Amino acid sequence: MSNPWNLPEVLLMGPGPSCVPLAVYAALAKPTIGHMDPRFLELMDDLKEKLRTILQTRNRLTVPVSGTGSAGMEAAFVNLVEPGDRVLVLANGVFGQRMADVAARLRAEVETLEFPWGTPVVPERVAERLERQSYGLVAVVHAETSTGVCNPVAEIGALVKPTGALYLVDAVTSLGGMPVAMDAWGCDALYSGTQKCLSCPPGLAPASFSDRAVKKILERRSKVPNWYLDLGMLVKYWEGASRVYHHTAPVNMLYGLHQALEEILREGLEAVLARHRAAHERLVAGLEGMGFEMLVAPPYRLPMLNSVKIPAGTDEAAVRKALLLEHGIEIGGGLGPLAGKIWRIGLMGHTARPENVERLLGALRMVFDSSCAFR
Amino acid sequence: MSNPWNLPEVLLMGPGPSCVPLAVYAALAKPTIGHMDPRFLELMDDLKEKLRTILQTRNRLTVPVSGTGSAGMEAAFVNLVEPGDRVLVLANGVFGQRMADVAARLRAEVETLEFPWGTPVVPERVAERLERQSYGLVAVVHAETSTGVCNPVAEIGALVKPTGALYLVDAVTSLGGMPVAMDAWGCDALYSGTQKCLSCPPGLAPASFSDRAVKKILERRSKVPNWYLDLGMLVKYWEGASRVYHHTAPVNMLYGLHQALEEILREGLEAVLARHRAAHERLVAGLEGMGFEMLVAPPYRLPMLNSVKIPAGTDEAAVRKALLLEHGIEIGGGLGPLAGKIWRIGLMGHTARPENVERLLGALRMVFDSSCAFR
Repeated sequence: MSNPWNLPEVLLMGPGPSCVPLAVYAALAKPTIGHMDPRFLELMDDLKEKLRTILQTRNRLTVPVSGTGSAGMEAAFVNLVEPGDRVLVLANGVFGQRMADVAARLRAEVETLEFPWGTPVVPERVAERLERQSYGLVAVVHAETSTGVCNPVAEIGALVKPTGALYLVDAVTSLGGMPVAMDAWGCDALYSGTQKCLSCPPGLAPASFSDRAVKKILERRSKVPNWYLDLGMLVKYWEGASRVYHHTAPVNMLYGLHQALEEILREGLEAVLARHRAAHERLVAGLEGMGFEMLVAPPYRLPMLNSVKIPAGTDEAAVRKALLLEHGIEIGGGLGPLAGKIWRIGLMGHTARPENVERLLGALRMVFDSSCAFR
Repeated sequence: MSNPWNLPEVLLMGPGPSCVPLAVYAALAKPTIGHMDPRFLELMDDLKEKLRTILQTRNRLTVPVSGTGSAGMEAAFVNLVEPGDRVLVLANGVFGQRMADVAARLRAEVETLEFPWGTPVVPERVAERLERQSYGLVAVVHAETSTGVCNPVAEIGALVKPTGALYLVDAVTSLGGMPVAMDAWGCDALYSGTQKCLSCPPGLAPASFSDRAVKKILERRSKVPNWYLDLGMLVKYWEGASRVYHHTAPVNMLYGLHQALEEILREGLEAVLARHRAAHERLVAGLEGMGFEMLVAPPYRLPMLNSVKIPAGTDEAAVRKALLLEHGIEIGGGLGPLAGKIWRIGLMGHTARPENVERLLGALRMVFDSSCAFR
């Protein structure tokens, strides 16, 4: 192939995308067939069933949205929220804030309950708020990718349920790397992304909606102000005996996601989650052994997104550049108030392996040893 | 690869997706790198330049939207239209009607000027309407995929320009298969899709906006009610010296689109367009020789989407099924009022080759000869 764009192989240890297994690359390159071809409809059905397994849900409306994780966020809010609806967003990072921005654009009455970045949402404070005020929807991010904090989604779900509000969880970074139990959490709507622990390239947002959420969608007073993401129309393509064309499905990306789920289920979800935990523990031990300090307290750390404090005096961008260009390893910088203060090291999906942890630790040692300018 | 999903190779002659060149499949399977990796940013810049070439525009804001062609439609309307804005949609098929639906959901004052399906938009009637009423935006589909009609977009553009309205053109099916000259048409906004004449799998919507359109976006009275497709934010990721993360770009799909454009530019845009015309003429001659009748009058026929009237008494679904399952060829049925009345035969991109036309004609003959039940 004469292509000047000879892209390098990079060990992807940032906040996503993560490394992609060869079988998934191969699936992406399978022959495109029509989005109404009966063989493609069969693959769609199998894909939905695989998603239900990995999300631990029986929700009928479980589909990949045709966009990246943020399109999943948009789809959840635009379908479940109407103008004037009262929405509570629990926010302790960029992605919680993004939820509030998305909801406000839909003319919902949005309240944000903020928690310091690097710390988790505190259920007691949520309980207080829910006693004082009723909401149509309560939303929280499970794995806050901007800080590396795990929020207590099961406990929050138990608080939301008796209030009658719909409960929306962002599982973009958590799905496939830690337990996600949609039905057990009492979760009504959830979205994820393909490029984190599912180890498929970015481009799709698996999403699932409970019967209560579907009821809300069907009983809307107004049309969904987003034709592309209107689930009431999308569902007629993804379900039922006679499928109705909505938009042309991203066929090859769906092959990739299907294969990525196949890889996870073949290894076994429990084994995959254990691999994430083991890689995380090894990384933290290695980093702490080198004198680095983690941002997040141990009980709230995510296995797949590790926030490391940058030592004072370090040219952090130079370190990341050296890792990328000299060692072929990508790690992430901080966002918002944490820019320049942390690195974000991803151990997501296919990336979460001991050999990758060792390679990163070795490279970090070399980068720091080779130049005292970094400190 | 142990994969039970042994997808067949299908000759894609429906309304899209079209056949994909091997080099594009190979590009899809290239190693995923980070969406902020400098080497990826370089590829993005080259991709934008290639899009400008093929769209015949110098518009700075020329980017692939992270969704299928319908996401391009959504992005154009949601950014350019505010509540109360007066919008005129010229409609003569499904995709014109879809435009009106999309705009109405955004609380615009939408007027639709309808023309019979299978016939083109008539500039004189557009001129009359524009004299009576002023609009913020006038929208039309270039190649109406539901009927096979080509609309006179250059003439309409000349009428819209003096009124001061923004001029939006849907080039989903036309781009890469017939001349698209955005700047010469006085077009302010245009979107397309990857899975038609660009011969890349579905998943991205190339789009371009004039300086006037960008001005409208920057001077909006309200936030774009769609975070995912907010061009004011997206542009900070796609342009400028320091790129700001918005959503994770669909990296591998962008590799695919980049390669697909490379293939077209290497063959030469003129040669590609001539190949479409030649394949179309050969198909029409073959079909008419077999006694079939085309839906659209010769001057308004699209080269890449050929609507054929279904002979009375034909079990049209059985014919399509036999073509697909026995001959490995997909063609499309009719939509809306044309369901059961026409077949839609696509000659898009890589599909538009004489050998494919001959294969289809041969298969059609066999299907009709093998069963008198079809007539």
